[in-house]
Amino acid sequence: MPQLTSTCYADLEIGQSISYDKTLTEEAVELFGRTSGDINPVHFDESYAKGTMFKQRIGHGMWSASLISTCIGTLLPGPGSIYLGQELKFRKPVFLGDTLTATVTVKDKIDKRQWVILDCKVVNQSGDVVTVGDATVMPPANSGTIEVSDL
Amino acid sequence: MPQLTSTCYADLEIGQSISYDKTLTEEAVELFGRTSGDINPVHFDESYAKGTMFKQRIGHGMWSASLISTCIGTLLPGPGSIYLGQELKFRKPVFLGDTLTATVTVKDKIDKRQWVILDCKVVNQSGDVVTVGDATVMPPANSGTIEVSDL
Repeated sequence: MPQLTSTCYADLEIGQSISYDKTLTEEAVELFGRTSGDINPVHFDESYAKGTMFKQRIGHGMWSASLISTCIGTLLPGPGSIYLGQELKFRKPVFLGDTLTATVTVKDKIDKRQWVILDCKVVNQSGDVVTVGDATVMPPANSGTIEVSDL
Repeated sequence: MPQLTSTCYADLEIGQSISYDKTLTEEAVELFGRTSGDINPVHFDESYAKGTMFKQRIGHGMWSASLISTCIGTLLPGPGSIYLGQELKFRKPVFLGDTLTATVTVKDKIDKRQWVILDCKVVNQSGDVVTVGDATVMPPANSGTIEVSDL
């Protein structure tokens, strides 16, 4: 079973960083379309997509953002985090087969509220930034490790 | 086949609004976990979730945000929109079985860039705002209707 590590506010350091990689497969785009209901043909219809500025199918912008959520909820600060807010700029399209790397870095600690600001960046396999923005998170109350089930 | 309507910049009016409903089923939370890789046990493990401040499993915050993306990409402005940015505040948890209504409303038109600012709000069946924030979107070049495949 996968092990996940949680890091509490006191144990987080500015500059601390973690990354998560995922490829936009046919299955990933279909699952995202089904869970969200977003059946925009730019994501699913090759002939429609050829007529757009992208010239091919693209992933859902919010899918790239979901990888940031994965970093926060499973890696840093990890389980027990309360996700309070996220700014997102969608800078570049994501194409089928692209492998994205989402990285979150502790940018600031707000002692008064015990919240952290995370710098979040998602890049593709060419190093182009596709999605970027700050997250606001309340870290878990305690640091520790838990075993979880995979899906 | 579902029909989707696109609305170009010139045809959008401030105050114009559209909504989309979706229930957080077991399947929806599992599909989101699989497409994103976010296996945080607060979403999947009932006994773990009982020990959290939520006392029960919750949906991924970014799932509620994905319903905003569905509004923009399929309803208003619809297919052909370029999603440029999104601010998100996650105000309340979403529980299994909750039915969310995402509503996007044209808040401002930026003539110089031909972009629109959309006020985005996601509420649950009790009327509580769970997720809120502005989107920045470049509407499609032309208004019109297309037929698309369902998933």
